[in-house]
Amino acid sequence: MSNSYGTIFKITTFGESHGKAVGVVVDGCPAGIEINEDYIQHDLKRRKPGQSILTTQRQEEDKIEILSGVFEGFSTGTPIAMMVLNEDQRSKDYAHIADQFRPSHADYTYFAKYGIRDYRGGGRSSARETLARVAAGAIAKKILSHFGVTVHAYVSQAGPIKLEKSYLELDLSTIENNIVRCPDETIAEKMIAFIDDTRKNRDSIGGVVSCVLKNVPPGLGEPVFDKLHAELGKAMLSINAVKGFEYGSGFDGVAMYGSEHNDEIVNDNGNIRTTTNFSGGIQGGISNGEDIYFRTAFKPVATIMQDQESINESGEKIIVSGKGRHDPCVVPRAVPIVEAMAALVTVDFLLRNNISKIKTFNK
Amino acid sequence: MSNSYGTIFKITTFGESHGKAVGVVVDGCPAGIEINEDYIQHDLKRRKPGQSILTTQRQEEDKIEILSGVFEGFSTGTPIAMMVLNEDQRSKDYAHIADQFRPSHADYTYFAKYGIRDYRGGGRSSARETLARVAAGAIAKKILSHFGVTVHAYVSQAGPIKLEKSYLELDLSTIENNIVRCPDETIAEKMIAFIDDTRKNRDSIGGVVSCVLKNVPPGLGEPVFDKLHAELGKAMLSINAVKGFEYGSGFDGVAMYGSEHNDEIVNDNGNIRTTTNFSGGIQGGISNGEDIYFRTAFKPVATIMQDQESINESGEKIIVSGKGRHDPCVVPRAVPIVEAMAALVTVDFLLRNNISKIKTFNK
Amino acid sequence: MSNSYGTIFKITTFGESHGKAVGVVVDGCPAGIEINEDYIQHDLKRRKPGQSILTTQRQEEDKIEILSGVFEGFSTGTPIAMMVLNEDQRSKDYAHIADQFRPSHADYTYFAKYGIRDYRGGGRSSARETLARVAAGAIAKKILSHFGVTVHAYVSQAGPIKLEKSYLELDLSTIENNIVRCPDETIAEKMIAFIDDTRKNRDSIGGVVSCVLKNVPPGLGEPVFDKLHAELGKAMLSINAVKGFEYGSGFDGVAMYGSEHNDEIVNDNGNIRTTTNFSGGIQGGISNGEDIYFRTAFKPVATIMQDQESINESGEKIIVSGKGRHDPCVVPRAVPIVEAMAALVTVDFLLRNNISKIKTFNK
Amino acid sequence: MSNSYGTIFKITTFGESHGKAVGVVVDGCPAGIEINEDYIQHDLKRRKPGQSILTTQRQEEDKIEILSGVFEGFSTGTPIAMMVLNEDQRSKDYAHIADQFRPSHADYTYFAKYGIRDYRGGGRSSARETLARVAAGAIAKKILSHFGVTVHAYVSQAGPIKLEKSYLELDLSTIENNIVRCPDETIAEKMIAFIDDTRKNRDSIGGVVSCVLKNVPPGLGEPVFDKLHAELGKAMLSINAVKGFEYGSGFDGVAMYGSEHNDEIVNDNGNIRTTTNFSGGIQGGISNGEDIYFRTAFKPVATIMQDQESINESGEKIIVSGKGRHDPCVVPRAVPIVEAMAALVTVDFLLRNNISKIKTFNK
Repeated sequence: MSNSYGTIFKITTFGESHGKAVGVVVDGCPAGIEINEDYIQHDLKRRKPGQSILTTQRQEEDKIEILSGVFEGFSTGTPIAMMVLNEDQRSKDYAHIADQFRPSHADYTYFAKYGIRDYRGGGRSSARETLARVAAGAIAKKILSHFGVTVHAYVSQAGPIKLEKSYLELDLSTIENNIVRCPDETIAEKMIAFIDDTRKNRDSIGGVVSCVLKNVPPGLGEPVFDKLHAELGKAMLSINAVKGFEYGSGFDGVAMYGSEHNDEIVNDNGNIRTTTNFSGGIQGGISNGEDIYFRTAFKPVATIMQDQESINESGEKIIVSGKGRHDPCVVPRAVPIVEAMAALVTVDFLLRNNISKIKTFNK
Repeated sequence: MSNSYGTIFKITTFGESHGKAVGVVVDGCPAGIEINEDYIQHDLKRRKPGQSILTTQRQEEDKIEILSGVFEGFSTGTPIAMMVLNEDQRSKDYAHIADQFRPSHADYTYFAKYGIRDYRGGGRSSARETLARVAAGAIAKKILSHFGVTVHAYVSQAGPIKLEKSYLELDLSTIENNIVRCPDETIAEKMIAFIDDTRKNRDSIGGVVSCVLKNVPPGLGEPVFDKLHAELGKAMLSINAVKGFEYGSGFDGVAMYGSEHNDEIVNDNGNIRTTTNFSGGIQGGISNGEDIYFRTAFKPVATIMQDQESINESGEKIIVSGKGRHDPCVVPRAVPIVEAMAALVTVDFLLRNNISKIKTFNK
Repeated sequence: MSNSYGTIFKITTFGESHGKAVGVVVDGCPAGIEINEDYIQHDLKRRKPGQSILTTQRQEEDKIEILSGVFEGFSTGTPIAMMVLNEDQRSKDYAHIADQFRPSHADYTYFAKYGIRDYRGGGRSSARETLARVAAGAIAKKILSHFGVTVHAYVSQAGPIKLEKSYLELDLSTIENNIVRCPDETIAEKMIAFIDDTRKNRDSIGGVVSCVLKNVPPGLGEPVFDKLHAELGKAMLSINAVKGFEYGSGFDGVAMYGSEHNDEIVNDNGNIRTTTNFSGGIQGGISNGEDIYFRTAFKPVATIMQDQESINESGEKIIVSGKGRHDPCVVPRAVPIVEAMAALVTVDFLLRNNISKIKTFNK
Repeated sequence: MSNSYGTIFKITTFGESHGKAVGVVVDGCPAGIEINEDYIQHDLKRRKPGQSILTTQRQEEDKIEILSGVFEGFSTGTPIAMMVLNEDQRSKDYAHIADQFRPSHADYTYFAKYGIRDYRGGGRSSARETLARVAAGAIAKKILSHFGVTVHAYVSQAGPIKLEKSYLELDLSTIENNIVRCPDETIAEKMIAFIDDTRKNRDSIGGVVSCVLKNVPPGLGEPVFDKLHAELGKAMLSINAVKGFEYGSGFDGVAMYGSEHNDEIVNDNGNIRTTTNFSGGIQGGISNGEDIYFRTAFKPVATIMQDQESINESGEKIIVSGKGRHDPCVVPRAVPIVEAMAALVTVDFLLRNNISKIKTFNK
């Protein structure tokens, strides 16, 4: 009962890696938003497998189909259902893992929780579920575009290779210029080489995705539990393989003095601005109009092309053999997923904020 | 509309720093739990101001009063309302900040969102709200004790002073032995000295609270959005001053290879265990029975005893003067808050998990 | 976990009949609404016991106290907690029913559900809980007044005495002119006499409360499950002793032909109106701008001043003796409760509707 | 944002009358329930159009397809998505009503709310959405069967033709023996004749569906807002064309004395029973183990084969002509819908109740 996300702009995803379809129902989308399948498909291409040497070679078109909620090219206010039929099902590829618990996968935990599981490609625990988030996120981005809000994610670390520059020193329009989605060509090349070596070693490696939202109006986020950064954090941590989240000064802010860390407020020709932005655009859980930025840590994916010891459902020792397809590093494909989740959170707060002031009524 | 937290075990907090009362309604507490005011008070004492030289000198008894839901010492299944009347209101102390936007406080963002705010001591954005969480968390801990689940938080960093040891090398029963709540006496002394220096410099500093949950049964956490660590993350990020969250290997896991990071599964005399625990006790968002551990980063508190430039509601330049009371470092008092939020999340998932298997029915 | 009501404008009530206090937390109230204790008290007086010969003689001032969320007379957008301390607790009056299951009360069902119960005066199942609804409803009415929406409930049946006139034939400003709250003086007198006789016979009797909302703007209510009338129905059915709900043509509409029942739509000088209103102001679950009207049926209250056979917790046959205080007919006091719940539902939909159109954004 | 229903067992429906598909996602279904498409199809056949002379002649197979959540014939605990592709789309049939507001349909209210609408066959407001409820309800019924709970609905009134017998005097196994679904052959024949006459007169007529749940265990339903009958009421009122709901003694209970209406409690060889059941199996919102029964009133459907005056989107007077297909009386097809909604509500409370007692934990 937790396959839904959002309060007013609410998505419910469904589907398993090798079931019939993966999809999403978007409830609470305002009427009058221009939506079509080509538009949605664009972000799905950025997430799809087989797009470069850095990603799994699973071949899927991931062709999106809109089933409801859109009439003559515009949302009608009713639920928008979308799905992708799974093509590359190859269930038999997975017969050998039917009763295996693969290390650091969710095989054992799903079994412990439900007593039954669709073992094919991880079933519901597969990151294939995230295509549904990307499809819904595309709609959220379209709504944000009405407000001038932009969302840009990029890879800022792959294994030990770090992009040390702040987003302010980068040209975010170049993110898609390379297959690792790092907007610094020199670092990108190092990342690509490192990931490719990892792949050749039949291993995997982690990474960090950074994300920036610009032009978010002040006032978004709800005290006290649904703080803007708390929801962003939950949204990111709900993505497969994520281990950590920080925003603004993050973990580095711990060792700063208050006198350094406090962001001085100034009146910049009628605009209320801060001279620094250690707050990451959020104070007391509510946006202040400055850029919102955060970082999300991904672990190395659990699927590796090596033999590993484990046990099966009967508790017997087994060797989990490394065959099949895998992503040596998940972060290049995670970029559109991070953007989608950030967009979903922001739209939901935009809609929720609509009701916070009495003056909203009096129009 | 976000002053509630939880799905089945649900809390709703209310109250402002200098209003009449701060309180909480706990809905969904099972019947038959032994609860009384003395028991609740115990954790509140660990959070209360004025408890040591490291904390604000605001004098508050924080005396909890149970208003409903408990009959003859036991919960009845109906909502448990609890409140603390604010004693030390001193509203006039705050008249000088009535129209000021203090740097890195929520003054401006509340104003931007609501157009009106209770400026006294930060109003609703004050960390005083967390006493309501601690009171509710005490009930959650009591429920967890029925399952043998323990929750221990401690300070693992204060400013630049770091406790490098893993929780496995520490004696968690010694956390309360010093006023900084760090279970390593040598490091604790350094932290205390550092915080006290910071206080004398009229400044503030950040810190990290680490937390460990033991004996959490396998199967807690819900795919796909309400992953156990995603809710823990949201819960921690919803605490005042928190800037980051990581669990298991966290941000350090990024630079590890999958072959190092994967936790090998073994059959330990009938118990399914892992030989390492980089997963932090959670796989695919669901507990696997290993220890759950995570770290939460707190920024330096925004209130400092120094003059700072800012603006007021009219957009005029002002000097925010540093007077009043403040915590030079919030983490010693944050320890029971982190524990409370961790307990609330875990109990909610325990209750939610009750319904995941058909065999639950057949009893 | 169901002591909350509403989606955006959300109330959470707490308290037992003879506990320390009964109260409510209102979350999601927009900032800037003028609220004070005197205003709230006004509706509470209409609900309070001991107000006339038709009601229980329990003596309670029911003095409301606002604990949070209101600053200098206006709502701040943060949760508004309010409570009434119970004065007339007399727990010992209830010792004799401690293990009794009173017929048609909730004694047995609470015991079956929770295994423990506060038996004093029905505990949580007492209609005393509804004072919390009335307090919250007063705030909802204040918000509605900003839109010109009015809510009027009145007694249209007491036992067999029926007010046959439609609300269109009545002067709703006269509802408070008599103690039974029936806006037809002749019928009111008959009702009063009938209820008084019932009281003298140590018995109780049921009744019907009718309610009319005027000036509700078109567009309120959400397809498909949260239809406006479905929420009104749930809200009314959640009031103690309610057995039925109908709106518009209601049960009488069953025997009508479509050609009679359909409400013809006309353009009345630019206003879209219907010439009849069998729809009760709602079509497809959404308001159409016409008057919304509905009827709520209340059973005779279960407390009567007569001996009745029953059993106790041990399953032994007992005599439940008729002593204490009771309302011979609950509907006069139910009038403000019906209004409160209708107002709460309507405000919630007003706030929810704020987000249904893209044009809302473009302001 | 209201296309979901339920708290733990939660359904989200999607789809328009003449869009690509109508479907549902069932979230929170326990793992291990046997489910297949043939089983679901069975109830859909009882709802489908064209099944008898009493129903619309729209030809649809309504073939259900399970997209996710079921593996090797059993639920896995992950969301179960199901859909029916619309075959008989004939959009052009509806071109003539593109800008018309049909009397007592939701055309105007959707337009007022959203500013855009899929006019074909009523779009989202069409009762075609209820096929999604019936599909989900079939799963709920399967879960109830594990507890011995049965749900039987039947037609108890069609226009002026009333079945006066109580359900206790009827053989509920004969409901499907006739096309009007009335378990009294004589009354059924009268109903069929009356409905057929109505059809010939190109008119429509209302009806009442009665429903009985047997073997519901004591303790279901949640105080105070989510009373069992309040949710049943909301569920029924959310069905297209419903105008009223009553349970137990209902509106007739109003004129009864408490001394008549109270249900005496007895110990029947260890079973706690009541000698009468005016309470309808529910006291204080919680089931007491007796039969739960209620009645739901349906208005005459708005589509009639006669010309009617109305206006169009431009506010101009028009004639809405009576052509196309319609149900002269909706209640025979409403029977499986009422059952489905009753089953969904009951299962949700069964799952919610699992957590109400501490003893649940100690297993």
